[in-house]
Amino acid sequence: MPKFLVNEDGSLGARNDAHCVSIEHKLGIKASPTAVLQFGDHGGAIGTLVGEENRGLEYMFIMMNSARFSVGMQGIAVSERAYQQAVNFARERVQSRPVDGSAREAVTIIHHPDVKRMLMTMRSLIEVARAVAYVAAAACDTAHQHADDAVRKQSEAFYEFMVPVVKGWSTELSIDVTSLGVQVHGGMGFIEETGAAQHYRDARILPIYEGTTAIQANDLVGRKTVRDGGAVARGICAQIAGTEAALGQHGGAAFTAVQAQLAKGRAALEAAVAFVVANAKSDPNAVFAGSVPYLKLCGIVFSGWQLGRAMLAADAKRGEDPSFHDAKISTAHFFAEHILSQASGLRDAIVAGAAPVNALSEAQF
Amino acid sequence: MPKFLVNEDGSLGARNDAHCVSIEHKLGIKASPTAVLQFGDHGGAIGTLVGEENRGLEYMFIMMNSARFSVGMQGIAVSERAYQQAVNFARERVQSRPVDGSAREAVTIIHHPDVKRMLMTMRSLIEVARAVAYVAAAACDTAHQHADDAVRKQSEAFYEFMVPVVKGWSTELSIDVTSLGVQVHGGMGFIEETGAAQHYRDARILPIYEGTTAIQANDLVGRKTVRDGGAVARGICAQIAGTEAALGQHGGAAFTAVQAQLAKGRAALEAAVAFVVANAKSDPNAVFAGSVPYLKLCGIVFSGWQLGRAMLAADAKRGEDPSFHDAKISTAHFFAEHILSQASGLRDAIVAGAAPVNALSEAQF
Repeated sequence: MPKFLVNEDGSLGARNDAHCVSIEHKLGIKASPTAVLQFGDHGGAIGTLVGEENRGLEYMFIMMNSARFSVGMQGIAVSERAYQQAVNFARERVQSRPVDGSAREAVTIIHHPDVKRMLMTMRSLIEVARAVAYVAAAACDTAHQHADDAVRKQSEAFYEFMVPVVKGWSTELSIDVTSLGVQVHGGMGFIEETGAAQHYRDARILPIYEGTTAIQANDLVGRKTVRDGGAVARGICAQIAGTEAALGQHGGAAFTAVQAQLAKGRAALEAAVAFVVANAKSDPNAVFAGSVPYLKLCGIVFSGWQLGRAMLAADAKRGEDPSFHDAKISTAHFFAEHILSQASGLRDAIVAGAAPVNALSEAQF
Repeated sequence: MPKFLVNEDGSLGARNDAHCVSIEHKLGIKASPTAVLQFGDHGGAIGTLVGEENRGLEYMFIMMNSARFSVGMQGIAVSERAYQQAVNFARERVQSRPVDGSAREAVTIIHHPDVKRMLMTMRSLIEVARAVAYVAAAACDTAHQHADDAVRKQSEAFYEFMVPVVKGWSTELSIDVTSLGVQVHGGMGFIEETGAAQHYRDARILPIYEGTTAIQANDLVGRKTVRDGGAVARGICAQIAGTEAALGQHGGAAFTAVQAQLAKGRAALEAAVAFVVANAKSDPNAVFAGSVPYLKLCGIVFSGWQLGRAMLAADAKRGEDPSFHDAKISTAHFFAEHILSQASGLRDAIVAGAAPVNALSEAQF
């Protein structure tokens, strides 16, 4: 047996047989080195038991559940940084005359419709991911602190449903957002010194570590949807229908447009939940063939829901700061027509697209 | 005046005042160095006129039109390499038991439905991009070589319409395909030595150089769609309807599924063409707000069309090699339900999504 690492008198003991044998060359997050560690190859390493025996996996999952939410937040954070940088560049970079002929000279690119479209895509994806994550975080607090046991349980179930969505959706969209951040910069975005490419490289690990998107999606399908027969999922859909009604009562053009897309999105999600619950036992390969599209559909529809709520709140507070609140309303409107509108396509992938996912044999790929 | 670079007798003349002052640090394509060149800062550089005076821009566009098609092919090529690498990894990497309980031990990941879904996504996107590019290339040959003047003109118009689609769509999808290539590898994909990340880095320049996707989309909207009042675009839609009819006559389940998605996709494209043609003059900002979604819609619908044709051809030849042709049919079916199904969402973005793209002022971003 090797000696202890720290002697009884506090002096250093023998070196532990744990060695860093290499540092990985990674695509991104290079400020966070990943090491290959070797334990015990030269006589045996000392390990120290943390907590009680046989409860390590349980402890690990306390860390992991928290880490999953946190990685979702990383997706939002790197996206926000990419957006700020892209907006700043678009305000300064002069290129081409406007398509509407409103100026005879080249203008800053923030005046070109497709640059606006890219910035609105980035902006709206960040806003929705943040809104969904904050609503989930509030439910986590309620689940821990509320006086009413029934409310605690309901909040806990809602939060548990949201964790894989926050992790999977916020990190998948961070790839799109940081990619658009490069695109807004044009050729300059491909030069490392510009800084846009770093976000693109850094973001790529987020849908992988602490459980890939597929692992999140399997959790969402299995433990979070099938286990309770879709009860929590349908409960969320009922809340979404309430937001649709409020948007309809408002009646403004942007509000009814969001209402219409949200209603289509919710119907698509309800169809997907019914498919998942009905077929999980009898044909798990068919259900899990659509698990990631199901996670994305949840992400998109919950996002539309939260922006629907946000635009109603922004409208109520508009007088306090019209410019800020109008931007909120336009961002919700943009998201509904450009991204929430993908919901029915995702439903088709889940409900009708399983057979060709599983059709090819290993040799046919 | 400086002396000539090569003297009359063939010996070296004075050094030209053209200097490489730095090599850029790029995200990818590092085997193709990009230099900052300085001309004439030390007394004046010698330039040599290639061809006739005042025809440089014209010559440049001969190169550029060819280069745009070629960059589209680069997108297909890097995607294909990413796919082959991902398939090989998925055949070797052992992780987790199958979701259907068919094995008690962990299996190679190619047996997991979501890995199959990712590989099918990669595979189908490569097949469609290649099919669309080859059909365009054939039209280019016909436009140059056919005996009939009318056929030459029609083929030329078709090819011209396709060039921005081949460039924009094949390169945009190469980002998704190479990103999935990393994802299939899991954490290993983030390690540079694995090689998957390089494709992801290399692909990122493709939607930027030789005209960004927005530049391709502006060309597709302006010169290719609006200028002839949508005639070429509608002609293509009529051909697509012919393929739908042939799929319907076949009647097999996968064939009618593709027919249904193709019909929805074509209807979405027809609506987008009508919107673009009707509003380009009166509201160019609204039309160009949807130019990239319009390019993607063209890409997706033309892709579905070509895979519809491919599955009919595969069915006719099935006896020659059932495994190969069945994989073609399944790939077409997969594409229809998982990707062509996004067409109606893109239509909404184009037809109903312009107002919020253009709503924010520079200060509101």
